[in-house]
Amino acid sequence: MRLESGTSVILRVEMDKQLVTFGELVSAIGQQGGDIVAIDVIQPGRKKEIRDLTVSVAEPSDVETLSLVVSAMKGIHLLNVSDRTFLMHLGGKIQVESKIPIKNRDDLSRVYTPGVANVCLAIRDDVNKAFTLTIRRNTVAVVSDGTAVLGLGDIGPHAAMPVMEGKAMLFKEFAGVDAFPICLNTKDTEEIIAIVKALAPTFGGINLEDISSPRCFEIERRLKEELDIPVFHDDQHGTAVVLLAGLINALKIVGKSMSGIKVVVNGIGAAGIACTRMLLAAGVTEIIGVDKDGAINRDSFYENKAWNEYAAMTNPSNEKGSLAEVIKGADVFIGLSRPKLLFNEDVKRMNPDPIVFAMANPDPEISPEEAGSSVRVYATGRSDYSNQLNNVLVFPGIFRGALDARASTISESMKLAAAKAIASIVTDDELNEEYIIPSVFNDKVVPAVRKAVIQEAINSGIARKIPSDFRNLD
Amino acid sequence: MRLESGTSVILRVEMDKQLVTFGELVSAIGQQGGDIVAIDVIQPGRKKEIRDLTVSVAEPSDVETLSLVVSAMKGIHLLNVSDRTFLMHLGGKIQVESKIPIKNRDDLSRVYTPGVANVCLAIRDDVNKAFTLTIRRNTVAVVSDGTAVLGLGDIGPHAAMPVMEGKAMLFKEFAGVDAFPICLNTKDTEEIIAIVKALAPTFGGINLEDISSPRCFEIERRLKEELDIPVFHDDQHGTAVVLLAGLINALKIVGKSMSGIKVVVNGIGAAGIACTRMLLAAGVTEIIGVDKDGAINRDSFYENKAWNEYAAMTNPSNEKGSLAEVIKGADVFIGLSRPKLLFNEDVKRMNPDPIVFAMANPDPEISPEEAGSSVRVYATGRSDYSNQLNNVLVFPGIFRGALDARASTISESMKLAAAKAIASIVTDDELNEEYIIPSVFNDKVVPAVRKAVIQEAINSGIARKIPSDFRNLD
Repeated sequence: MRLESGTSVILRVEMDKQLVTFGELVSAIGQQGGDIVAIDVIQPGRKKEIRDLTVSVAEPSDVETLSLVVSAMKGIHLLNVSDRTFLMHLGGKIQVESKIPIKNRDDLSRVYTPGVANVCLAIRDDVNKAFTLTIRRNTVAVVSDGTAVLGLGDIGPHAAMPVMEGKAMLFKEFAGVDAFPICLNTKDTEEIIAIVKALAPTFGGINLEDISSPRCFEIERRLKEELDIPVFHDDQHGTAVVLLAGLINALKIVGKSMSGIKVVVNGIGAAGIACTRMLLAAGVTEIIGVDKDGAINRDSFYENKAWNEYAAMTNPSNEKGSLAEVIKGADVFIGLSRPKLLFNEDVKRMNPDPIVFAMANPDPEISPEEAGSSVRVYATGRSDYSNQLNNVLVFPGIFRGALDARASTISESMKLAAAKAIASIVTDDELNEEYIIPSVFNDKVVPAVRKAVIQEAINSGIARKIPSDFRNLD
Repeated sequence: MRLESGTSVILRVEMDKQLVTFGELVSAIGQQGGDIVAIDVIQPGRKKEIRDLTVSVAEPSDVETLSLVVSAMKGIHLLNVSDRTFLMHLGGKIQVESKIPIKNRDDLSRVYTPGVANVCLAIRDDVNKAFTLTIRRNTVAVVSDGTAVLGLGDIGPHAAMPVMEGKAMLFKEFAGVDAFPICLNTKDTEEIIAIVKALAPTFGGINLEDISSPRCFEIERRLKEELDIPVFHDDQHGTAVVLLAGLINALKIVGKSMSGIKVVVNGIGAAGIACTRMLLAAGVTEIIGVDKDGAINRDSFYENKAWNEYAAMTNPSNEKGSLAEVIKGADVFIGLSRPKLLFNEDVKRMNPDPIVFAMANPDPEISPEEAGSSVRVYATGRSDYSNQLNNVLVFPGIFRGALDARASTISESMKLAAAKAIASIVTDDELNEEYIIPSVFNDKVVPAVRKAVIQEAINSGIARKIPSDFRNLD
């Protein structure tokens, strides 16, 4: 277990009072540099007792020695050591709440039997009423099979839950969307499709998350075809939208246009492909995708079907070769691959004012130190560098807008509108190399994305409802 | 739409201001006996305007005429008439909330990336940690396919949502359980089984609801076998437990014992069968099931497989004939069938001090007027008569106990313990013909059921965790 530096930990200890006194324990902890800041008796007893000791420590390494010393004490059983992150996860991070209290029999007879029967019948007679009379209006499923979680890979559906719960929190906190995690104990493409289709009566939208490639493509494509509610694979499209938003602003700084640039996308997985499609939709014409066999081109045949399709829509000059070769003359590098694949000498072969978006997790394709002053605009997915391209900027507002407009899908043009809206939050006065993208805590982002998404949904006939702030009766 | 008497309604009207004044509308409503108690401008406009008028009326019939009169007015478009029940359902009745606020980047980095990764890895390494580090500890799925909703039949999964949301509210309000509705757009038994199994990583328990017979048997049986979390079909077992609770107390009043009584169960569907099994487990030996072909006996062959099994475990004297015939000499009638099937002359043929539990929806098998003084103890499922046998008394406490003990299943003996616990809430002093069962608002019920269920789960080795209030270190 990694522990955060300078934070507190909680030791849960069972003490045999006949063998050890609490004073002995306190002094042992003190000798290791631990400062006991709180004591909770979890289970009292005459002979044995369980206590939680909140101990402040200076360094993670202090906890390791502290735990060893405490474990070794006679009469002490160290049951658990928790850091703050783990404590925040105890019992999960979300809960289901009633919107209306049930105080008496009258309330009960309205929200449940017999009153609820009339509401059920109204929906039976007109299924569209489900959007007004049930949670469907505001509820999104966060669906994962746990096969591609963060940078951790296939950790399974149980272990994926904390991420999906976290996502549900972000949906609520940033956009007021009720999201519920659905972690599926199957990796079968057809079964996942069938399950999500079967779940649709409960939900107004589906956010697919951390499903490995290439299954994620088929799952998303089929669900988009076969459901009439928005289906959005965030790893693909959330990433693509935020990258485009960043690029819109980065190009302003260097004074270049979408149609005039050469972009190298490194890592042609789900996100790389979605990002490329988004850039094409935004007017970029020269995109070269690079993966383990080098530049993806039309003279090669790829076992990965998606790459053959990719070759057909990109690389107009049919360039071949390694990343180090095709990076020559590029204006923009977009990394969605692995840490430390791009070097300073590569950047030096790019066109003047190179833009580098290095999104690999947990470490970028090129560190800020290595990129140095050779790069004009540098961005990553990390919060500890400037210009964090985080899809938390994207999915809350996109779904807020899609739900409010009761959109049947999230189209390419709605995503484009979202990217422009995010970019627009940074004003021309504010824009500079270190600030191309707003913070996830900027409260202008979600309303702007929502508005842009709704307007585009209305314009393109995807909206099935005009939200009241878009209506004008006169 | 049925409207509650003496309540208020909300009229949503679009007014063309060039054709009608608001004063004209107010006076028209007043002339029909309506009293405008609130006005909300929903959509302002220079020429047209949408307003919600909350109007208090004396009788439902007033609303009908009021609506007709308002609709007929020149310049008025009556968009909607809502009663309070419908208003309480707008946008659904439950929501998903974060337990922890995300105030800053530090919070974000703990509940989401990068901090969440350590929590995910801890669960990957020990899947049991999902019960402490995710919502699984306290979360139940309320699963339905919408095929047997209340007394309404197969109204579909969308229309079933208000009931499942209501159920989720009751879980939270009465027992602090986080429950989430899952309404499935499939009626296929195997598909429902596969889906619920796939959903299990998110949930600590499965409450099946309003799934039609006989599919509900196979679905529950298989899920109980194939999952290691509690699976409980409330329509069967919730009903059985509350009936047994009522019967325990009713028998005290008449001074009879479980082993000495003859019970006629009318309506051998899912609930009738579960109820019979529960009574057998409680020590009743003479039970005769009656359905459309009369008493279920061992000389008949039934297409409904469940009835052949039923014949084998009931009806020791192999009685035959109609309800009117086999009711002779019965001590207890339990109706889980249709309204108005039992008559006063039937009751008169029962043994002295007859007990009648008439649970048909919305009207009981025999009305209290028809039963009259011939019945000693009379109970129904309705809230407007005394002795309401409502399974809201059962499922919150059963799941609270099962989750707290991390039970792998809900056994027959746990259900038996729950029934005894519910019955025990009514003290010998309080017990009388009109009060055999506590109110759903009696706050002693859930703690008592929880305690009984946990103790039985511990005794029978079903508990995988000893809750702290059951632990004693000494």
